[in-house]
Amino acid sequence: MENVKQYIEENKDRFLEELFELIRIPSISSLEDHKPEMERCANALKGKLLDAGADKAEVMPSKGNPVVYGEKIIDENKPTVLVYGHYDVMPVDPLDLWNTEPFEPVVKDGKIWARGADDDKGQSFMHIKAFEFMVKTNQLPCNVKFMLEGEEEIGSPSLGQFCSDHKDMLTADVILVSDTSMLAPDKPSITTGLRGLSYMEVEVTGPNKDLHSGIFGGAVANPANVLAEMIAALKDENNKITIPGFYDDVIEASEEERKEMAKAPFDLEEYKKSLGVAEVDGEKGYTTPERTGIRPSLDVNGMWSGYTGEGAKTVLPSKATAKISMRLVPNQNNEKISELFEKHIKNIAPNTVKVNVKALHGGLGYVSPIETKEYKAASKAMAEAYGKEPIPVRSGGSIPIIAQFEQILGIKSILMGFGLESDAIHSPNENYPLEQFFKGIEALPYFYKYYAK
Amino acid sequence: MENVKQYIEENKDRFLEELFELIRIPSISSLEDHKPEMERCANALKGKLLDAGADKAEVMPSKGNPVVYGEKIIDENKPTVLVYGHYDVMPVDPLDLWNTEPFEPVVKDGKIWARGADDDKGQSFMHIKAFEFMVKTNQLPCNVKFMLEGEEEIGSPSLGQFCSDHKDMLTADVILVSDTSMLAPDKPSITTGLRGLSYMEVEVTGPNKDLHSGIFGGAVANPANVLAEMIAALKDENNKITIPGFYDDVIEASEEERKEMAKAPFDLEEYKKSLGVAEVDGEKGYTTPERTGIRPSLDVNGMWSGYTGEGAKTVLPSKATAKISMRLVPNQNNEKISELFEKHIKNIAPNTVKVNVKALHGGLGYVSPIETKEYKAASKAMAEAYGKEPIPVRSGGSIPIIAQFEQILGIKSILMGFGLESDAIHSPNENYPLEQFFKGIEALPYFYKYYAK
Repeated sequence: MENVKQYIEENKDRFLEELFELIRIPSISSLEDHKPEMERCANALKGKLLDAGADKAEVMPSKGNPVVYGEKIIDENKPTVLVYGHYDVMPVDPLDLWNTEPFEPVVKDGKIWARGADDDKGQSFMHIKAFEFMVKTNQLPCNVKFMLEGEEEIGSPSLGQFCSDHKDMLTADVILVSDTSMLAPDKPSITTGLRGLSYMEVEVTGPNKDLHSGIFGGAVANPANVLAEMIAALKDENNKITIPGFYDDVIEASEEERKEMAKAPFDLEEYKKSLGVAEVDGEKGYTTPERTGIRPSLDVNGMWSGYTGEGAKTVLPSKATAKISMRLVPNQNNEKISELFEKHIKNIAPNTVKVNVKALHGGLGYVSPIETKEYKAASKAMAEAYGKEPIPVRSGGSIPIIAQFEQILGIKSILMGFGLESDAIHSPNENYPLEQFFKGIEALPYFYKYYAK
Repeated sequence: MENVKQYIEENKDRFLEELFELIRIPSISSLEDHKPEMERCANALKGKLLDAGADKAEVMPSKGNPVVYGEKIIDENKPTVLVYGHYDVMPVDPLDLWNTEPFEPVVKDGKIWARGADDDKGQSFMHIKAFEFMVKTNQLPCNVKFMLEGEEEIGSPSLGQFCSDHKDMLTADVILVSDTSMLAPDKPSITTGLRGLSYMEVEVTGPNKDLHSGIFGGAVANPANVLAEMIAALKDENNKITIPGFYDDVIEASEEERKEMAKAPFDLEEYKKSLGVAEVDGEKGYTTPERTGIRPSLDVNGMWSGYTGEGAKTVLPSKATAKISMRLVPNQNNEKISELFEKHIKNIAPNTVKVNVKALHGGLGYVSPIETKEYKAASKAMAEAYGKEPIPVRSGGSIPIIAQFEQILGIKSILMGFGLESDAIHSPNENYPLEQFFKGIEALPYFYKYYAK
């Protein structure tokens, strides 16, 4: 992969401008009224694939948002890399915490600031530009396919079916994904595990209308208080999740594995400082990296009830709602966990209220072995780009579709991510360092080189 | 008070149209940007007082929203009734639950539907029209003063000072207030007690920004979960409030008093049915009327955190906030309770989060004796209008300024309210039955008749 650095240097302004075109499309998959933006973004990506050198590219329908597919087949006897990424992004609220417009990318302090700058428009686009480099310089050593979806942030509800429907088209030897982070620019790492996810919504209804909290307060169950009590009851004093059966399928990490994990660099003081917390908190008996890497968790992602405006309103609310998600370790089944959650919530709900529970989305966890040809190729590629061998790391995040790829297509994925924890993905002021963006474009061709050897 | 029924019959359409002019002004005191509406409403009321026959009426400044003062002094040797009411109203959200526009009154099914229809524009306006009747028919038997404020719904923060500053102007023998409910149109009642109020806001801050719930979930305290745990810890399994010292100043009702209270008509099945709840809930050992009448309570009035939009967002929120209010019985001091609350919240907050507590408003409770001349006049007036002797009832609601009137002006208040519990005050679809509105205009002159005797 000669001259990749030079190619990037010569084209960097164009690369950014092209990425910005994609970022400017507010492709928020969780908002129903953004459907036209999803179409627009998919069509823009199709154009980028063709411009980069794909033999063909298509915007293909799915049950939900369209999937962008593209390919360049140079020799049927050579291996095929299937690149997976997503063009949908998270919502942007709370909008008032953004320093710049979420969908108008700005370069400042060496970073791109925008929703999707990292997750996953920035990271997906690195693959298109790495592909362009290999095609334009006649160095592409194997076949490449692209599958870029528009529903990752809502749990990829349609992509499993899409994969089943297009198995032949998607035949490949490895799936390459950049939708994760590395430890730090000077601590390259490769994600070897993902947590599963079960994302629920609980609605508690007390009285049939909002009531005056003076006239009725103390005599009628308040759904906000009841919801708070139910949330509190979901963990015990050791931060163990109390849902019966929740831990049944969790495989305890061996002492050996835990020792190996503890070798990855982690600075607790730095971690606390960067988050602005005096103390961390989590399941008793585990370290911070273990709590996100090998242990399940339960978090309120949102809750609301009653009067949330300025000042005081003396209302006893009719309803209270919480979005609660659980991150799962690889052997836990998210559908089973969602059922256990619903059963438990209904079980602990007092008969003074009505409770409605629904599963919003979910997926299985994933573990990738490190002795494979593809992992070794990724490791060498990172080492060549960063001058340091990368550390295998279990991530706390979830990409539910990765487990499904293995189930449906029978293909393992390599999670070669270039994001940083400071990128604030899913948060206001999402950003992506230019250095990581360009390093990614450099490192990816190295993967092809080592993998196709 | 001859011909009062006839006077009402002849003028009812005009009365309604005049009331609607007031209702159409969205005088929401808790919203800062509604200040001009407060001025507009105060000026409109001043006009109504002059039209009704006041010798003078003024819009007077206070530290906050203006106070409308008016008077008609017929003879300095006669007693003076000071009418208190308020022209400010509660916010209207959630707006989507209203069947009609909150500030465009509609008459349907024998009721006026609008914010403020009852609380307290409708009830205050009855006094102006009763006054008009007495003036226009030359039957006013004593002096009348009006004091209509614009901050009752936010706890009357400026009216105490206003009373201190204008003690001479406000000299009176009794304060007459219609800002409460009666049991039912066929069960007239007079409110003889009000609960105090301490209204707090608790903000819990975890990490310094919203985090990805996968990358960080399980390793960092989630402020929404922590807030839920803290709210849950505020009551024990018997629904006793756990704040140390909270009950210290509560005077237990005697068996005698409880027996007397139990005589008031109350149908638990009807109560549950009207609220749509399978079971009521409250402090163990007390009946439903006791729980609101003679016992303090604690309710979440609002709470919010994280993502509250459509679908799933996997965010570990930075902040979680709750508005929590306590209704107090007459001997409890709201400032002391607010301090105990703040101290307790800070005490139980884990060191994984930061907690900010502020008191939004509050006030003392009130008890009115029933052996007085003024209570007897009110009782006779209700009996004459409704054909039945009214029952004295302790209300669960709060009108903090009533206790202050006694402290500052040395005047007792009579709470002669014509609202019904079904009026949905503070809720969507607030309404006020026409029958109650016109009965109020009829009953009030009877009070003057008996009181001035």
